[in-house]
Amino acid sequence: MSRRSVREEIVNAAVEQFHARGFNAAGVKDITDSAGVPKGSFYNHFVSKEALAVVALERYGESRQLSELTDASVDPLLRLRQHFEFLRDENTGRDFSRGCLIGGFGTEMADHSDVIREAVRVSLERWAQALAAAIGQAQESGQVAATTDAKTLARFILNAWEGTLISARSEHSEASYEVFFDTVFGTLLA
Amino acid sequence: MSRRSVREEIVNAAVEQFHARGFNAAGVKDITDSAGVPKGSFYNHFVSKEALAVVALERYGESRQLSELTDASVDPLLRLRQHFEFLRDENTGRDFSRGCLIGGFGTEMADHSDVIREAVRVSLERWAQALAAAIGQAQESGQVAATTDAKTLARFILNAWEGTLISARSEHSEASYEVFFDTVFGTLLA
Repeated sequence: MSRRSVREEIVNAAVEQFHARGFNAAGVKDITDSAGVPKGSFYNHFVSKEALAVVALERYGESRQLSELTDASVDPLLRLRQHFEFLRDENTGRDFSRGCLIGGFGTEMADHSDVIREAVRVSLERWAQALAAAIGQAQESGQVAATTDAKTLARFILNAWEGTLISARSEHSEASYEVFFDTVFGTLLA
Repeated sequence: MSRRSVREEIVNAAVEQFHARGFNAAGVKDITDSAGVPKGSFYNHFVSKEALAVVALERYGESRQLSELTDASVDPLLRLRQHFEFLRDENTGRDFSRGCLIGGFGTEMADHSDVIREAVRVSLERWAQALAAAIGQAQESGQVAATTDAKTLARFILNAWEGTLISARSEHSEASYEVFFDTVFGTLLA
């Protein structure tokens, strides 16, 4: 493998290992073994596991398909629903395991690593902005009442989503997803 | 210390250590050192760190003051507001650190320990029931619209709370609490 592809293999393996095990439980050797590269190669590419976590979080964020939230060719309320359906289906397809890597790092590492905390903050902010843009458009079109500020709704709904994943994971059930969709699309975005 | 008090010291230290560090980062020795007892005494009281985590979660749940949510001498909507104000003030008093131990264990351990996952599920269910009881009373008294089932609202609000803690922890700011109170008490429970 070229130097570049070794780095890519490590990042891809890190997203998997951090997501499946958490930051503390996923060791550098677990990650390099999973990537199929020598453990010694790790420090040619990353100064620390913490530095890798920041890159892995960025990569994970790209997989959230935020660009679809701003696709003006689709009705804004439909975009919002399809976004959360995509996330729900991804999670039910994993038998409710793993949750969200952003929320996972926020929970496990925010108090212990300023660089990971900042990466989590930026990830949530970027996500909330994409949601707020779609909610704002749904308000402009009259589909959603404009009584609450789009940014407030976006942040609240994103926080509710993160908690919903925890609940679904503990119950191994779709019940919390049903609660989320009923309340978000039946009340908050009505 | 008597045998009983050694156990108590271990449980109290475990709540602190698990909450501050997380399950994986808090070792048995960290817990026994914090309790001021010999590491060897641990296995006289608990078969595993996992078994201790279940007891620690129970103890933590008692500190959530759920009984106040069912105190019929207080207006039900005021009870709900005071409950979340108590939780918010506890968290801001810790400079936004630690979050909720139930959500923390749910995130870090639900996929890796069936006994911890079940303890998280039960803790969330008990909490949601206490919230649903107060919401149901607020609906009966006409303070809150009865258009959405109290159990659905309770679970959604609890999930939103868990996500709000993650967001506040990543931002070191009260902004997500303001979003929570505005949306829950301005829209969902209006």
